[in-house]
Amino acid sequence: MVELIKEALHVSVSDPVATSMNFLNEVAGRYPEAISLAAGRPYEGFYEATDITRYIDIYLEYLRERGVDPRRALMQYGRTNGQIHDLIARLLATDDGIVVAPEAIAVTAGCQEAMVIVLRALCAGPGDVLLAMSPCYVGITGAARLVGIEVVPVPEHEGAQGVARVAREVRAIGKNPRALYLVPDFSNPGGDCLDLPERHRLLEIAQAEDLLILEDDPYGLFGLDDRERPKLKALDTQQRVIYLGSFAKSCFPGARVGFLVADQTVVDASGGRTLLADELSNIKSMLTVNTSPVSQAVIGGVLLESKFSLRAANKAKIEFYRQNLRALLSALQEHMPAGITWNTPAGGFFAVVQVPLVADEKLLEISASEYGVLWTPMSFFYTGGEGSHSLRLSCSYLDQAQIEEGVRRLARLIGERQ
Amino acid sequence: MVELIKEALHVSVSDPVATSMNFLNEVAGRYPEAISLAAGRPYEGFYEATDITRYIDIYLEYLRERGVDPRRALMQYGRTNGQIHDLIARLLATDDGIVVAPEAIAVTAGCQEAMVIVLRALCAGPGDVLLAMSPCYVGITGAARLVGIEVVPVPEHEGAQGVARVAREVRAIGKNPRALYLVPDFSNPGGDCLDLPERHRLLEIAQAEDLLILEDDPYGLFGLDDRERPKLKALDTQQRVIYLGSFAKSCFPGARVGFLVADQTVVDASGGRTLLADELSNIKSMLTVNTSPVSQAVIGGVLLESKFSLRAANKAKIEFYRQNLRALLSALQEHMPAGITWNTPAGGFFAVVQVPLVADEKLLEISASEYGVLWTPMSFFYTGGEGSHSLRLSCSYLDQAQIEEGVRRLARLIGERQ
Repeated sequence: MVELIKEALHVSVSDPVATSMNFLNEVAGRYPEAISLAAGRPYEGFYEATDITRYIDIYLEYLRERGVDPRRALMQYGRTNGQIHDLIARLLATDDGIVVAPEAIAVTAGCQEAMVIVLRALCAGPGDVLLAMSPCYVGITGAARLVGIEVVPVPEHEGAQGVARVAREVRAIGKNPRALYLVPDFSNPGGDCLDLPERHRLLEIAQAEDLLILEDDPYGLFGLDDRERPKLKALDTQQRVIYLGSFAKSCFPGARVGFLVADQTVVDASGGRTLLADELSNIKSMLTVNTSPVSQAVIGGVLLESKFSLRAANKAKIEFYRQNLRALLSALQEHMPAGITWNTPAGGFFAVVQVPLVADEKLLEISASEYGVLWTPMSFFYTGGEGSHSLRLSCSYLDQAQIEEGVRRLARLIGERQ
Repeated sequence: MVELIKEALHVSVSDPVATSMNFLNEVAGRYPEAISLAAGRPYEGFYEATDITRYIDIYLEYLRERGVDPRRALMQYGRTNGQIHDLIARLLATDDGIVVAPEAIAVTAGCQEAMVIVLRALCAGPGDVLLAMSPCYVGITGAARLVGIEVVPVPEHEGAQGVARVAREVRAIGKNPRALYLVPDFSNPGGDCLDLPERHRLLEIAQAEDLLILEDDPYGLFGLDDRERPKLKALDTQQRVIYLGSFAKSCFPGARVGFLVADQTVVDASGGRTLLADELSNIKSMLTVNTSPVSQAVIGGVLLESKFSLRAANKAKIEFYRQNLRALLSALQEHMPAGITWNTPAGGFFAVVQVPLVADEKLLEISASEYGVLWTPMSFFYTGGEGSHSLRLSCSYLDQAQIEEGVRRLARLIGERQ
C-alpha cells in the first residue's frame, strides 16, 4: 500500500494556522458544553433555509423579465468573472459610494478565493512580498503560503507610517513589496478601525511607495454606531485599492460568494491595455472555472430584494451585533479581575484581552475542560511568536446571556490561574 | 493612475491556453451564426431551472429526517471537505464498484479545484513534476501553471509503456515524477479509452515507478455501448489512484460541484498516520474555505432522487450523446474529402480530424467567417507545438442536424483550401 511522506508534501498542508484551527475545532468537539467565545461565525437566528429557494426564485424572475434563458444562466458553465457583477456594482454605489464599472468586478467562490487570485497575480517572482497589518486574518497568510509568497508584518498600531517604514526596509534588502493587506473596518482579530485622516494618509503612502492596497471588508456594516466610515476604495482616486468583498456576514456564509474589485489598468510590452479584473479571470478560470451560478442566484436574489442596500436590509443584524459587542465589553468590565486590560473596538465581532498567563493550546484545553469556555489564542494571528499573553474573544455566534456567562467563566480562569 | 506592467504579473495571467480559449470565445461571439463544433459544454435540452429548487427541497427533507438543522447545514460555514461525501461514497459504490470511506472524499468547487488542491499538495519542490497523457485537457496544465509545476507529456498512443519510459527519463535528469494525470475513459481531446489489460498494466507501472495516478473521469458514463469499463480506482488495490470526479456532465455544470477521492495514508516524521484527504483539507480551507452547501444541496438532491445511480438517472442523456457521437462519425464518413482521416472514439464528446492544412487561429477565423463553422485547433492541447494539422470536433452541445451541417461546412472548407 502507498504511504506518502508528509514532509514531501507541500508546506501548505502543514499550515500552522490550519493545525491550530483544527486543534480548536477538535477541543470544541470534545467539550460541546463549553461556551465558544472562539467561533467567529455569524449568528444563525436570522436565517431561514426556505429563504434560499425564495431568493433563487426572485433571481429567476429577474432573468425572465430580461429574456435570459434561466437554464443557461443557472445550470450551464458561466462567465468566468461571474454574472451578478452588475448587481454588485449597484450595491457598492448604493451602500458605499464606490463607483466602478461592472467589468472591474469578479465574483469569486467566497472572499478566500479572491485573496488567492489576487496574490497569485501580483506576486510573480521570489522577491515579491505582501505586507500585511499584524495581527492578521489567517486567511490571507494561508493564501500566501499556498502560492508561495512571503508575508511581511506591519504592526497594526503603527498605522500608515508603519507601512511606509516596512516598505522601505523590504526594498532595502532587495525585495519588492507589491501590496498591503488590511481590514480597515474592525479588523480580525485586532478590532482596529482607521480614522478618516489615517485612511487618506494610507492612500498617500501607497501612492508614494508604489503599493497596491488589498482592502478586505467583511465587517464594514457592523460598526457600533452609524458614523460614516468611507471605504478606502471610495477615497481611491489613483486606483491604488483592490477591494475584497464578502457576503458571509451581510448575507450568509453558505452561499460561498465573494468578489473583488480590480479596476486597475494593465499595460503589456506592446502597449496593449487591459483591465486587471480581466487578467485575473485567467487565474479564476484555472482555479474554479466560474463561481456557482446557483450560489450567485441566491445572492443576486438578496441584492434584488434589498434594492441594492445591504445596509438597509441588515438593520436587525446590525443592531444585534452591536448589542452583542456592547454585552461583551460590559461583561469584561463587570467580571474581569483588576489589572486585566482589553481593547474597545468601534465595531466588528471581536475584542482582544491581555492576560497574565501564557494563552496557549495548553491553557485552552484547561479552559475548555475545567472552566467550560473557549477562546482563540492571539498567537494564531501572528507569524513571529507574538501574542503569547493575549486572546481573542468573539461575540458573533452567541446571544447576550451566553456572552456574559462565557466572560464570567473566563474571568474565573484568569482569577484562579494568574 | 496606477498602471501595472503585465510582464510583472504571474505567468498564469498570460496562460497561452486561456489566451487561445479567449480567442475562440471571441470568434464565436463575432460569428453567432456559425455552428460550433468547438463547444464542449453539455446539451441544455435536459435542464429545467425549476429542478434546482426541487433538488434543494429533496435535500432539505433528507436533513429534516435526520434531525439536522437546515439553517446550519445550508447557510453557515460548513465542513471543509464537504457534507455530501457520504452520498458520493454511495454513488461510487453503486455505479462503479468503488468502495471508499466517506472520509476519503473531499467535495470541491468543481473538479478544477480538486486538480489544484491535489497538485498543490503533491508537488512541493522544484524537481517535482507531473506526467500527463498528451494531448491533454487544458484544465490540468492551467492548474499546474498556477502552482508552478512542470508538466511532462507522455504521448497518449504510447500508453502505459510510455508512462514507464517518461518516468525513467525524468528521474534520469534528477527530477521527481510525483503523479500521472489521465482521463482513462474517452479523453478530452484525444477520445482515447484504455482497455482492461492496459488499465492493469498502468496500475502495475504506477506501483513499479512509485507514481500516483490522477484519474479524471468527467465522461465515464458516456460510452457508445454498455460495455463495462472498470475505473482505475475500482481496480486499485495499492491505493495508487486519486480519483477526480465531476458532476458537470452527469448533473449540470452550474452547480460547480466536483470531488476527489484520496484514501492514501500519509506518514509524518514522528510516525503519525493520517488520511491524504484530511491533509488536503488544509489546502482546501485556504482556497475556498468549503464548497457552497447550497450547491452541495442541489447535487445531494440529485443523488438522493437517483437512488445513488447517476448511470440509471442519465439513461436519456447517455442515449442522446451516443446518437450525437454516431451522427458526428457518420457525417465525417459521408462528407469528408477522400484522404481525410479521423479517430473513432468509443465514447465521450469529441473526435479528432487530421487535415492537410495548418489548423491554426487564422484558419479558424476563415472557417467562422466564410464557412460558418467553429472547431478547436488541436495545438491548444499540446505544450510542445504538436497538433498543427489536426482539429477537435465536439458533438455535445448540438442536435444531430446541426452536427451534420457543421461537418458539411467543415468538409467544404477542407475541400476548397487543401
